[in-house]
Amino acid sequence: MPFQSLADVRAMLAALPAPDAAAIAAAEARNGQLTKPPGALGRLEKLAIWMGGWQGTDKPTADKPQIAIFAGNHGVTAKGVSAFPAEVTAQMVANFAHGGAAINQLARTFGARLDVHALELDRPTADFTEGPAMTEAEVVEALRRGHEAVSPDADLFVAGEMGIGNTTSAAAIATALYGGFGWAGRGTGVDDAGLRRKEAAVAAGIEKNAALMGDPLEVLRCLGGREIAAMAGAILGARMARVPVILDGFIACAAAAVLEKAAPGALDHCVAGHQSAEGAHARLLEKLGKEPLLNLGLRLGEGSGAALAIGVVQGAVACHSGMLTFAEAGVAAGA
Amino acid sequence: MPFQSLADVRAMLAALPAPDAAAIAAAEARNGQLTKPPGALGRLEKLAIWMGGWQGTDKPTADKPQIAIFAGNHGVTAKGVSAFPAEVTAQMVANFAHGGAAINQLARTFGARLDVHALELDRPTADFTEGPAMTEAEVVEALRRGHEAVSPDADLFVAGEMGIGNTTSAAAIATALYGGFGWAGRGTGVDDAGLRRKEAAVAAGIEKNAALMGDPLEVLRCLGGREIAAMAGAILGARMARVPVILDGFIACAAAAVLEKAAPGALDHCVAGHQSAEGAHARLLEKLGKEPLLNLGLRLGEGSGAALAIGVVQGAVACHSGMLTFAEAGVAAGA
Repeated sequence: MPFQSLADVRAMLAALPAPDAAAIAAAEARNGQLTKPPGALGRLEKLAIWMGGWQGTDKPTADKPQIAIFAGNHGVTAKGVSAFPAEVTAQMVANFAHGGAAINQLARTFGARLDVHALELDRPTADFTEGPAMTEAEVVEALRRGHEAVSPDADLFVAGEMGIGNTTSAAAIATALYGGFGWAGRGTGVDDAGLRRKEAAVAAGIEKNAALMGDPLEVLRCLGGREIAAMAGAILGARMARVPVILDGFIACAAAAVLEKAAPGALDHCVAGHQSAEGAHARLLEKLGKEPLLNLGLRLGEGSGAALAIGVVQGAVACHSGMLTFAEAGVAAGA
Repeated sequence: MPFQSLADVRAMLAALPAPDAAAIAAAEARNGQLTKPPGALGRLEKLAIWMGGWQGTDKPTADKPQIAIFAGNHGVTAKGVSAFPAEVTAQMVANFAHGGAAINQLARTFGARLDVHALELDRPTADFTEGPAMTEAEVVEALRRGHEAVSPDADLFVAGEMGIGNTTSAAAIATALYGGFGWAGRGTGVDDAGLRRKEAAVAAGIEKNAALMGDPLEVLRCLGGREIAAMAGAILGARMARVPVILDGFIACAAAAVLEKAAPGALDHCVAGHQSAEGAHARLLEKLGKEPLLNLGLRLGEGSGAALAIGVVQGAVACHSGMLTFAEAGVAAGA
């Protein structure tokens, strides 16, 4: 499939694959025969059946999870929107490479492949308070990088990010897509003055790019960053390959929201991994209609909350695909 | 330490070991230097520091988790309190042995050692609506079995259970310890009439054993089952060995509550793994002052909810003990 313009992305969004209805029916039937009271595994049962639908089998797996981290730099950092200097993006990419970050430990814990994509860190996006953050060529290239990052072998996918300034970009996207106020939050830990600068940047970005805010993909181009576009591309790429996705926090969900706004149902292959402590994430999950698997106060990014939720999905799939049925185990079913 | 009477158990409860304050301080200091914004790993940070305190190190581990399942049969099943026949206890123990149950899959997923202790399944406890469920010798033997089940090698421990009828026993214990009504729930799935029979059994058990209900260990003897006493013994055994524990659902928490009522603080080495869908579990967790790590609608028993939470603890400990510090990674700390 060509991937050279936003028109190509629109064509993909117009022809999204559906889950395998026969596999869902078979997984539901299997679930009803396993050695447990009906419904006793709660949400794990629904998760396993959902995994089966996307993988096209009544015995889904989650032993080849893939985590792809995308890193980008943001012109809007010039507006003083982060507690950390922009150099930290590249420093953290080096930390990923040396295995020293949280996501490295979580990937190892759950046996996930971890890929890190540094997207032109020495060429930040334009400051979106002064005009579009990216040209069409730039946003398409970032989308393509994400789209191609999904391994054909993966049975579960997580997109994560690193990018000083990117909660401001995500807040601007959420504001453009859903309207209202209060989408900006503390991010890595700005003070009250920093929060006011973030709010001002969001408002300025929306105003400056007002003419294009009716089109979700243009919102992504004008207010996003390369790593945010790449996450959107990766989530779309996973959908095209029918690989189920665990969504991470506020920034990943802002990227995902672009797809859902452009094509309702585009996130049917996604489950929310966690609810972040970043202020507006709960509200964004509500907009997406997603109930988080975990709510442990994380607000780190790097895909960390979704990576932690890999363990939950692995548990769900292990139970569903590995348990014996009442007949196989010689256990009497309930009254 | 002798373990021949309830007096021995009382002596243990009067001399519980504390966590290592120096290890907690060292773990807190380490946490503050890791390559993440302060507090960005949310509850994972607190979990890792807590693990460090009990393990006596600033770099805790969770790669030797142990799950011990205790199974017992209950005389009160004669009162029609379960949707399943009593034979299912032994059938499920066989299923555990063959690796076919949910807990087998979860143990494998998180690399946990799984031990199953079938406690005199052919000799159910007495029907507690007609008198004490156990003699002192019986309850002490069950406590001892639990106490000895904790592996000295384990760095994390889960106690689980299997016992047709045991949500009724757990509800009776909770009622005796905390008073009030509504501690009985649907268990494995009883209908309205079954729920009324459970409520009647709980009321009858409390009334019949009224003279002894002021003493938590006597509550355990009169209203408990062997697997519930064994879980209490195991949680106590883990405390004596300073092994941190993940508490499972309603029945495991009823067992734990006996210890907490007998010696406030006795569960400081325990974290709540999940909030069960069994009606009164949320209320019991409130009584224990424990916030669950997961809330996914499980109500299976077998230690399954706690087993699923092993993954969360492993993630927490992996981040804490494996991440590089800002200085080690050459990353600039925040403003």
